[in-house]
Amino acid sequence: MSAVSSHTSTQSSGNNLDPWYGNYAARTAGLAASEVRALFAVASRPEVVSLAGGMPAVSALPQELVTESFNRVMAERGSVALQYGSGQGVPRLREQILDVMAMEGIRASADDVVITTGSQHALELVSKLFLDPGDAVLAEGPTYLTAIVIFKSFQADVFHVRSDEHGMIPESLREEIARLKGLGKRLKLLYMIPSFQNPGGVTLTWERRLEILEIARDNGILVLEDNPYGLLHFDTPPPPAMRSVEEDGVIYLGTFSKTFAPGFRVGWAVAPHAIREKLILANEAAILSPSSFSQLVISEYLETVDWRAQVDRFRGVYRERKEAMISALQEYLPELSWTDPQGGFYVWLTLPPYLDSKKMLPRAVKELVAYTPGTAFFADGGGHDNIRLSFCYPTPEMIRVGVRRLQTVISGETDLVSTFSSGAPVPLRSASTSFSAPPPNLD
Amino acid sequence: MSAVSSHTSTQSSGNNLDPWYGNYAARTAGLAASEVRALFAVASRPEVVSLAGGMPAVSALPQELVTESFNRVMAERGSVALQYGSGQGVPRLREQILDVMAMEGIRASADDVVITTGSQHALELVSKLFLDPGDAVLAEGPTYLTAIVIFKSFQADVFHVRSDEHGMIPESLREEIARLKGLGKRLKLLYMIPSFQNPGGVTLTWERRLEILEIARDNGILVLEDNPYGLLHFDTPPPPAMRSVEEDGVIYLGTFSKTFAPGFRVGWAVAPHAIREKLILANEAAILSPSSFSQLVISEYLETVDWRAQVDRFRGVYRERKEAMISALQEYLPELSWTDPQGGFYVWLTLPPYLDSKKMLPRAVKELVAYTPGTAFFADGGGHDNIRLSFCYPTPEMIRVGVRRLQTVISGETDLVSTFSSGAPVPLRSASTSFSAPPPNLD
Repeated sequence: MSAVSSHTSTQSSGNNLDPWYGNYAARTAGLAASEVRALFAVASRPEVVSLAGGMPAVSALPQELVTESFNRVMAERGSVALQYGSGQGVPRLREQILDVMAMEGIRASADDVVITTGSQHALELVSKLFLDPGDAVLAEGPTYLTAIVIFKSFQADVFHVRSDEHGMIPESLREEIARLKGLGKRLKLLYMIPSFQNPGGVTLTWERRLEILEIARDNGILVLEDNPYGLLHFDTPPPPAMRSVEEDGVIYLGTFSKTFAPGFRVGWAVAPHAIREKLILANEAAILSPSSFSQLVISEYLETVDWRAQVDRFRGVYRERKEAMISALQEYLPELSWTDPQGGFYVWLTLPPYLDSKKMLPRAVKELVAYTPGTAFFADGGGHDNIRLSFCYPTPEMIRVGVRRLQTVISGETDLVSTFSSGAPVPLRSASTSFSAPPPNLD
Repeated sequence: MSAVSSHTSTQSSGNNLDPWYGNYAARTAGLAASEVRALFAVASRPEVVSLAGGMPAVSALPQELVTESFNRVMAERGSVALQYGSGQGVPRLREQILDVMAMEGIRASADDVVITTGSQHALELVSKLFLDPGDAVLAEGPTYLTAIVIFKSFQADVFHVRSDEHGMIPESLREEIARLKGLGKRLKLLYMIPSFQNPGGVTLTWERRLEILEIARDNGILVLEDNPYGLLHFDTPPPPAMRSVEEDGVIYLGTFSKTFAPGFRVGWAVAPHAIREKLILANEAAILSPSSFSQLVISEYLETVDWRAQVDRFRGVYRERKEAMISALQEYLPELSWTDPQGGFYVWLTLPPYLDSKKMLPRAVKELVAYTPGTAFFADGGGHDNIRLSFCYPTPEMIRVGVRRLQTVISGETDLVSTFSSGAPVPLRSASTSFSAPPPNLD
């Protein structure tokens, strides 16, 4: 009897398959596969149109440019490419990164740059340096989902600040800071994606950038500016980076994943002097040194290829795909509202409030279209009536097919709700296709 | 007056240069550049013979093998190489890693393998998953210096277990476990480098492997088996890996940094099922996915090149260098004792107890030879009369030059000690050049 009940009890606690269950660190308790993960495995079948992922259009990068860069590196500096390197990264590449950042108004020294394994790893290392359990991180609402995962993995609490079609609302930031300080929280980081935000698609105005920097300065909060998409504007560039006006209070993150290719895993951080020294030590502890091979190939590419023209080519590809998505939304889902990004990878769609984007996902996969439910981008359960649509990877034709399938899904769900509701007509919002339209629900 | 004293107080606390000093996480307090770091920057001048680093002899890898692998990858799978990949790593490479590990007796499934950014990152991720502040990690004494840095970066305490020329002493492990349990410590990991240990150069016998696994099992301690050098034996292979006899209680770490090239940053972990699932999630949070580019080049290399013959070539290179080092030590420093490794990269030298290897380092750099002081490999201040000598990177000729310079340094320091001592003859130990000689001081 006791053996049986003990067995039952172990089963119900869900850990009988892991003999090391009791040995994990406290921070590991929150580490779990997302609920939509299994569904995404299904969604990777070729017949499914995925509007879910953030994979760049690497097919727009002529492969011979990569091959030529590689072959020159091996011919001229092969023994360096194959070897361990500096924990801070290759000096020449750090200089070239200054030219890349100058396009967004940033002036820095190559000494300020730390090369990381994608800018993702810079996010992880900064979090490791700064976050104690119970610390607070402020972020846009919605925000980048894997940033939430990282902050939580160091047992920090993520608090969202209301955002609208012009990005984070300064007054809401002031209020949230006051509220959290009142609760005795230690406010460690203000995480921002100011340009072509993931997932919102919105861009923080210049005036708000200045105002938010001032609020952060006044409150002693370090700004973590994540800027993977800034160079990928469709027409006019976004305002200069926040780092361009504030050196001591901003850690800036950049990457070659979107302007070159993610397969190399090369990103970087620019940090104030003392922080940068610690970042290098943390980088060395984590990986000894970033890949020499990847860094030298990118350095050679920047040296010998007209990389600005290639960025222009990427812009053209993404502009065309964004336009395909917006026009498909106008055609198939005119009763809904969405953001109309001026760069980057994502459109943020708002469903009628009676629909639940996560619950709707299995039906979508059945209809052969995938998206990311809005809840993935909130730490607090928000976003149930939102969807992130990615236009970066599928062709314009497939984007149209995907949105048409999404219409089928949404109609089906709406019918279902109508059937089980009192029979009253279902309210739908008016379409919002530009920044002058009413602000979408982004909080 | 008060402004001045406030200024002075800020200065004396040593943080006046870092406005974010008060914002770091508690774990960051222990993060500091090692004292020998600045000296190593000097030691990287070409006229200095470095016996300090652990850089593999990548010149022994024919570069055309890399170039051909790369060009085939780009021709056949370029769009995959440039893109994000799976957080667990490329499936084909995970299968090929099974063949590599089979050479050391390991049987596993490709599902059990997680590709990481060098095995260093696996060490970091495992530490993140398991270590709470105050947890205990057991390790050989001496042990790999960057493992100590990682464990401490998660605020764990590292305890060394006595080792001799046959590796960790099981009875000492039992005693240390009992002592730490008596102190109420949570024993989370037993970190081992069983074959051609860094820095000791010693190899754990088969009997001790079995006994230590049993001790770990009896005490519920997870073994972390780090095996970068196992395939690089000079004559006879080391005993099979600990993972070959124990699946549920061992996380095994492997790497291509020593059998191929470190510039790609590709290593791996093999972990019990439930731990492996968490490792993948932690890997994704930290870097999204390991470099597709690096993984595919290595996979192509393993597929199309006789990589076992290349490992043989590496063995020959390192055997020759090890022999050069041992014969130079016999010629120039016969009064000292050292380990005689049967594989790997390192010799562990024991100085007379009145010499301090860290204090002696500036003189060594002045004499144009560099080494790593023994203290770097202990968490507890041990190793002051030890030196790690690396024979992996310099040519046999330069190794001889380096050891001769080391003799000059040691003679000079010994003379200095004699001058300031009572004038009595300075005692020196007898040379120990094989495993049958008295055990070197490794604890």
